[in-house]
Amino acid sequence: MKLRQIQYFFSQFQVGQLFKLERVFTLEDVKNYANLIQDFNPIHLDEQVASQSIFKQRVVHGMLSASLFSTLVGTNFPGAIYLEQSIFFKAPIFFEEQILAQVAIQDIKLKKGRSILKLNTTISKIDQKIAVTGEATILIN
Amino acid sequence: MKLRQIQYFFSQFQVGQLFKLERVFTLEDVKNYANLIQDFNPIHLDEQVASQSIFKQRVVHGMLSASLFSTLVGTNFPGAIYLEQSIFFKAPIFFEEQILAQVAIQDIKLKKGRSILKLNTTISKIDQKIAVTGEATILIN
Repeated sequence: MKLRQIQYFFSQFQVGQLFKLERVFTLEDVKNYANLIQDFNPIHLDEQVASQSIFKQRVVHGMLSASLFSTLVGTNFPGAIYLEQSIFFKAPIFFEEQILAQVAIQDIKLKKGRSILKLNTTISKIDQKIAVTGEATILIN
Repeated sequence: MKLRQIQYFFSQFQVGQLFKLERVFTLEDVKNYANLIQDFNPIHLDEQVASQSIFKQRVVHGMLSASLFSTLVGTNFPGAIYLEQSIFFKAPIFFEEQILAQVAIQDIKLKKGRSILKLNTTISKIDQKIAVTGEATILIN
């Protein structure tokens, strides 16, 4: 039974496998997220304040961008449970900017009949500049 | 000028300072987040699937809970820019569960006239059990 599970699992996923998702965040998305979590940091919402910041314009909430890692996990590993996520914000993401979120399987471990996957997680811009990096650990039953 | 900035800054914030936020996530919140980021992992939305998971019921998206760290940053350090966030998901958060998100200043460094704060970030349950831990690094102009 355990062996069968392992075989089933390994037939599905393998180290190096890559999952991708393109996205554009709109002003509407940013407002929805701000309202949902009640984060009204003016660098996301106030054009005047944002124009005086180091980015010179409003930026998407970092944690909204990083939420795409959850999307990639939830979509490609339905039922998976998040154990860890590290996030390094390297460059701002602007409204209406085309971005590419990617999750790559870096390691697969079996523990008590469950699988623990370590993932490389990145968001890049259209010029391939990295905006967000990090790693995730997820549990699959 | 630099000294004045430093004095101004240190009069505002100090190591050990703690910021708190209570929250309850509803089914509506979880649906809104799922739609916003397009993460329809059934453990968040499907009662039938979730009942067979290790948690036995639907759980709030981990990255939605962790978004409260962004809320605490954006609210208490308006204009701050997120540099890093690590997140360790220790226990599930259920719908309608009262949770307490906290951010504590762990370290303050000055770099090129800007301040870099390291924060301890946690979410606890009403019985004080830790659901989420991690650290954040933010930049304040």
